[in-house]
Amino acid sequence: MRERWQPRPNARAILGAVIDRAELLRELETTWHRDIPLAAAMGIAAESYDGAVLAARAPAQPNRNVHGTAFAGSLFSLCVLTGWGTTWLKLRERGLTGMIVVADSRIQYRKAVTGDLVCRCTPDASALESGLAELQSVGRLRIELTCTIDVGDKRAVSFTGTYVVHAPKH
Amino acid sequence: MRERWQPRPNARAILGAVIDRAELLRELETTWHRDIPLAAAMGIAAESYDGAVLAARAPAQPNRNVHGTAFAGSLFSLCVLTGWGTTWLKLRERGLTGMIVVADSRIQYRKAVTGDLVCRCTPDASALESGLAELQSVGRLRIELTCTIDVGDKRAVSFTGTYVVHAPKH
Repeated sequence: MRERWQPRPNARAILGAVIDRAELLRELETTWHRDIPLAAAMGIAAESYDGAVLAARAPAQPNRNVHGTAFAGSLFSLCVLTGWGTTWLKLRERGLTGMIVVADSRIQYRKAVTGDLVCRCTPDASALESGLAELQSVGRLRIELTCTIDVGDKRAVSFTGTYVVHAPKH
Repeated sequence: MRERWQPRPNARAILGAVIDRAELLRELETTWHRDIPLAAAMGIAAESYDGAVLAARAPAQPNRNVHGTAFAGSLFSLCVLTGWGTTWLKLRERGLTGMIVVADSRIQYRKAVTGDLVCRCTPDASALESGLAELQSVGRLRIELTCTIDVGDKRAVSFTGTYVVHAPKH
């Protein structure tokens, strides 16, 4: 039987020093660039986080396709990383850790993207709270996150990904 | 009303010189590397094409994630490019041209991928023939393509993308 997972009692204290959002954003961006070569090649930036919405940005030039607009794979990668980053931030804010993976995703490309690629992820607050409670009680979180990329005031890309977090085994 | 699109009468003759499959594969790979910086960063190779199945490969190292396995965005990009490449090959074989874009996609990640990423796209032959006839009669093709990535004999990734081809306007 799977052991009931408990956060280490001092986890929040240890991580308490980095609940400053700007510091968390820098750490997230450093993680992307250091550990995911494609994120570095895209020039991704963790742009802003207000406690609810994470925005990530990538410049047009390294992310172009044969038509001179944004490459479908860059748009997907930006979305999947923004969803991953949102989950990472939510864990860090609570002093939790875990392995975050994406299970299934779907993406709709409605308009070609020109200029910088800017992605936003706004998680459903109550689903997230239930998920985090699940992580603390059974060691696993499963949540669906939606990320979007707009061009001007038009929706260009809609992404939905199912993320799974596994708490570390002790 | 949209004009009925016809291939230029000499299109097949002009392109006839490159129906050699190895030559087409080289041209596809050159296009990817030259026009899509992320494809170059991934180190993608157009590996084989037997007239039915296109296989594309990318090395593990530039496509790794924070866990040391393949990044979800690299796996998606490899799949979306293999589907795009399959469509491109089918057009070239028939002396047709067109703008190929992906509309919607979904991807399932079943197993972590370690080692090289190898993707295969096997289009449904009859759906493809109908699509190509549609392209020649109304100037537009819409087709759903499935691409897969295996690890050993296990399916690791399943991707389905809807591709749209617009014939050039005259």
